[in-house]
Amino acid sequence: MKTLKLTLLTLLVATVFSCQETTSEEKVVSEPVTEIQNDIEKVEPPHWWIGFKNQNLQLLVKHPNIGKATPKMSYQGVSVIKVHKADSPNYLFLDLEISETAKAGQFNIKFQHEDGSELIQTYELKSREKPAEDYVGFDSSDAIYLITPDRFANANPKNDEIEGLLQQGIDRTDNYARHGGDIQGITKHLDYIEDLGFTAVWPCPVLINDMPNGSYHGYAMTDFYKVDPRFGTLETYRELADNLRSRDMKLIMDQVANHCGLYHWWMEDLPFKDWVNYQELYEEHIDNWDWKVTKTSNHRRTTNQDPYASKSDHREMADGWFVSDMPDLNQRNPFMANYIIQNSIWWVETLGLGGIRQDTYPYSDKDFMSDWAGAIMTEYPNFSIVGEEWSYNPLLIGYWQEGHHNNDKYNSNLKSTMDFAMQKHIVDALNEYESWDQGLVKMYEGLANDFAYTSPKDIMVFLDNHDKSRVFTEFKGDITNTKMALSYLLMMPRIPQIYYGTEILMDDFDNPGDHGLIRTDFPGGWEGDTVNAFSGEGLTAAQKDMQVYLKQILNYRKNSKAIHNGKTMHFAPEDGVYVLARILGNETIVHIINKNENPLELDLDRFEELGLDGKSLKNIISDEIIIWDTSIKIANKGSVILTTKSN
Amino acid sequence: MKTLKLTLLTLLVATVFSCQETTSEEKVVSEPVTEIQNDIEKVEPPHWWIGFKNQNLQLLVKHPNIGKATPKMSYQGVSVIKVHKADSPNYLFLDLEISETAKAGQFNIKFQHEDGSELIQTYELKSREKPAEDYVGFDSSDAIYLITPDRFANANPKNDEIEGLLQQGIDRTDNYARHGGDIQGITKHLDYIEDLGFTAVWPCPVLINDMPNGSYHGYAMTDFYKVDPRFGTLETYRELADNLRSRDMKLIMDQVANHCGLYHWWMEDLPFKDWVNYQELYEEHIDNWDWKVTKTSNHRRTTNQDPYASKSDHREMADGWFVSDMPDLNQRNPFMANYIIQNSIWWVETLGLGGIRQDTYPYSDKDFMSDWAGAIMTEYPNFSIVGEEWSYNPLLIGYWQEGHHNNDKYNSNLKSTMDFAMQKHIVDALNEYESWDQGLVKMYEGLANDFAYTSPKDIMVFLDNHDKSRVFTEFKGDITNTKMALSYLLMMPRIPQIYYGTEILMDDFDNPGDHGLIRTDFPGGWEGDTVNAFSGEGLTAAQKDMQVYLKQILNYRKNSKAIHNGKTMHFAPEDGVYVLARILGNETIVHIINKNENPLELDLDRFEELGLDGKSLKNIISDEIIIWDTSIKIANKGSVILTTKSN
Repeated sequence: MKTLKLTLLTLLVATVFSCQETTSEEKVVSEPVTEIQNDIEKVEPPHWWIGFKNQNLQLLVKHPNIGKATPKMSYQGVSVIKVHKADSPNYLFLDLEISETAKAGQFNIKFQHEDGSELIQTYELKSREKPAEDYVGFDSSDAIYLITPDRFANANPKNDEIEGLLQQGIDRTDNYARHGGDIQGITKHLDYIEDLGFTAVWPCPVLINDMPNGSYHGYAMTDFYKVDPRFGTLETYRELADNLRSRDMKLIMDQVANHCGLYHWWMEDLPFKDWVNYQELYEEHIDNWDWKVTKTSNHRRTTNQDPYASKSDHREMADGWFVSDMPDLNQRNPFMANYIIQNSIWWVETLGLGGIRQDTYPYSDKDFMSDWAGAIMTEYPNFSIVGEEWSYNPLLIGYWQEGHHNNDKYNSNLKSTMDFAMQKHIVDALNEYESWDQGLVKMYEGLANDFAYTSPKDIMVFLDNHDKSRVFTEFKGDITNTKMALSYLLMMPRIPQIYYGTEILMDDFDNPGDHGLIRTDFPGGWEGDTVNAFSGEGLTAAQKDMQVYLKQILNYRKNSKAIHNGKTMHFAPEDGVYVLARILGNETIVHIINKNENPLELDLDRFEELGLDGKSLKNIISDEIIIWDTSIKIANKGSVILTTKSN
Repeated sequence: MKTLKLTLLTLLVATVFSCQETTSEEKVVSEPVTEIQNDIEKVEPPHWWIGFKNQNLQLLVKHPNIGKATPKMSYQGVSVIKVHKADSPNYLFLDLEISETAKAGQFNIKFQHEDGSELIQTYELKSREKPAEDYVGFDSSDAIYLITPDRFANANPKNDEIEGLLQQGIDRTDNYARHGGDIQGITKHLDYIEDLGFTAVWPCPVLINDMPNGSYHGYAMTDFYKVDPRFGTLETYRELADNLRSRDMKLIMDQVANHCGLYHWWMEDLPFKDWVNYQELYEEHIDNWDWKVTKTSNHRRTTNQDPYASKSDHREMADGWFVSDMPDLNQRNPFMANYIIQNSIWWVETLGLGGIRQDTYPYSDKDFMSDWAGAIMTEYPNFSIVGEEWSYNPLLIGYWQEGHHNNDKYNSNLKSTMDFAMQKHIVDALNEYESWDQGLVKMYEGLANDFAYTSPKDIMVFLDNHDKSRVFTEFKGDITNTKMALSYLLMMPRIPQIYYGTEILMDDFDNPGDHGLIRTDFPGGWEGDTVNAFSGEGLTAAQKDMQVYLKQILNYRKNSKAIHNGKTMHFAPEDGVYVLARILGNETIVHIINKNENPLELDLDRFEELGLDGKSLKNIISDEIIIWDTSIKIANKGSVILTTKSN
């Protein structure tokens, strides 16, 4: 029925169109699609849209011996520009041009063999659902909740095990096994996430990882167009996106351009000889492939910038495989490059994304990554992409952000980079004893580094994530330090990201830094959990207190223009006290971080520049009102957050 | 006799001049100087030159009640543009314009009081000794020997004690007392320094520090135009400069624009109310001035760049006194600004300097410092200035170098900055055990940061200096580590600086980091020393070996275009081996740093890019010849330096 309707629409459109364009030199008559045909094993992207700025589309066509076939099609406004044979006979790449006059609809591509046989594939061009400008990416007005989907909530136990996949079974006692969390689990708990005050959700990848083990983390994709059935379906993914959109919240997709999983479908029949890096080595050892024969990356990421790096070191970094079961994609192959770019755009368009987080950013070909981000940003001018460079070196954080003046003229087209440097500064600042060059000064001078960044407020900051020991563990179970760090994180001129479970003091004390342990199940996400962090049942007082604390700050932050876009002013730490202010119009927020255990009378003379004399300020946690006069009393170690806003 | 000759010359010049310039609207008739007159207590600069690009000269005139006098002068090509009264009645500032037509010579300035009385001061304009382009500053072809003059050699015991100065006596058993070293001590041992292979000498300041204590270090100047008589005279300073020049070596002067000594002559009668910073506080507490009442700097130097720094913090950093006996000069006072700039130029011109090292760079007004460096570089386009910013943050090293693209548009005009970051990386790299992110990778990634600098080879690098624990102490007495660090230092694309005594393994083990101890007497510098490092008498075998080692590398470096200006290539550390190469034309130097204690067979496949296959290379220490083939044997932990140059 659906098919029929589409077909009629296509006919109608084609008819209308041919009437209008009588002046066209060569008149294309669209052949009507009377029945959807799927003779071809794989055509990717599986569909596309009209109305992109880039009118080129490159289809990957995979089918036995398709390389010998001649593709033909006829659809008003769409033409085959070029047909590329691959090294494997089982691939063809078709360059289509989709002109401005093309209408949404379906058309058949016919693949004719010399013997006269013919395969027919129906392809669809859809209308875009909203204007390109409406794909608004995350920014400093957002607070991002990072989730490991397998470990957050299992809303659909039916998809815990899927027949035919390489890894079977769930085992919640094994930190490296699948635990059953799914996309519906996230959707189900959006009230909780929204109520905490988050405005964006970044789930770790949910595309299929049909790998024999370790599939739970999601970073070894075996099909870039398919949701892992253990996480859900394209429909459940869209439901999550739609639900978030209805709340005015953003969905950030975690994408991987650098590598795929070893069991990706194409690894058995690679289209080109250089589809993945070190492909010869792989093909030579395909039967005994493991870490011993893999050329893995040397991980010397500075070779991307280093003017003195040897070519061999750089090649080993960028082309070496991330690990032995993650083949390194060769983005210097232009077909691979197109494939990745189109895949990203397909997902932005399909889900109405509010951003992309790109994994292992510096391991990919950096010129390609610039093209990739540029292509996406050209289509979606208000979008955001953040690239992961795990480095504590501020020079690199600056280098990767778009517009930075790099000596090598590189421009990443990346609106956002990740502030691992600041993460370390905050943790060190609060763990260390105060001295001339230790303690709070680390945060203060860390933030001072913003002078070197193109746009500090577009940088993502965090205290931990799915790869790093949990912040509560980093602070050795010190709740006050954890609160100070979190409150600072949420006041900074940055885009803050918080890892799920931080609000209930989740930890990895038993084996700090262990990936499986970091990604512990969120209590209450599974039927029968004795503790339920969503309802509060079974939580300790400290856990509940932290939930409330974060909720108060996040919800203040949500509407605070001063935090989103205000001026920043801070005062060098003195006597264990560090003061940060955010200012916009009538709203001034003063964040006082006090490391002194004993009660303190803080002289306010030093902060005269804030212009707060005589004003009343509200403590956003206690609701207490104070008058900004000669001094204020601070009873304990911890953060004090004061605002001039009364409501 | 000299006076007479000058007078005749002046007359002659004036006559010739007046003949040529008959068209000048107002004809200035130079009044002849028949006798040099010095009625005025102080006129600074004490003399000046013709032929500078900047034709303005501002004279500071100090004399009781001179503020009420009217200055008059008449000299062809020179005119008084403006006369400025100061806040103190005992100062006048005269703006002179020295036109291109002015000739060298003397003229009298008459200061007339209303009562008719007159004071006469003869002022001299000299000819410049060489073209501005010939003042060539230090660069990456140099190796700099840093000396603490009081502690290097006492060639003239007669100047050990000078009557009338506040600090009397020498005491070589007290690390904070004067020890008697002097300028002549440096000059006397230039053969030694040159023979070691150094091409430039940087003595810590030798201008007068007439301070009651701590005067030996030289950084508390009490007269910016006077050599400390315990170090020598202007003549002995010129002798040092001339002697160095005759060896084609460079003299670098250590200047201080940020502060003076508390006993500077002007501190008793400051010309303006804002001559020094926090002047009101000083004048209020002048009778009980000490550290308790001083507003000292908060030393938060990042406030110079930090976009969020409060004005109060920045003021406290820049305007606070460095210590209580070093008043902070206010370079925002334009007369002070002129004074400092003219003083610097006076010394460059007087000594024919090969560079300036500017102390405590970030503590001064940064806009002034840019003007200051700009003014000097305008006069001496091939000169070099290095500013001291003691920071391990590469962002700051980059920020201060001229041409760096700073968000705040700041341009320092500084050709050279100091690489404290690399100093720390080298020390850490060799002290740490090897691991993924420790050990040699610190040097490797530290050098990779060069991508962010405007001109890495113009940055000064060092392992220690007069303020830092000696490198042999940093390496806990490990000679091999010390050699590896020094050889790397001398191979890097940088300007290397080595502190006196490093060549004989001087240390501060007894109290690491103690300033007095760091600046230990160089053995042999004093009559009767039982050890003489100049002659080798009494040195241990290890000390002699280090002297020879440094001498070999420094003398190779002296003529190595590849080290001075060559391409740099390095290979990421693997298995405790780090390889750095410098390449120019036919000269390739390969520096292998090996941390393995056991003999090693280094596979050379990885270094194919160096293009050395089959070439013979010479070990510059052992003179051994090796053929670059499949591998080379390395017998011990340490550095191996190979060169393709045969001679």
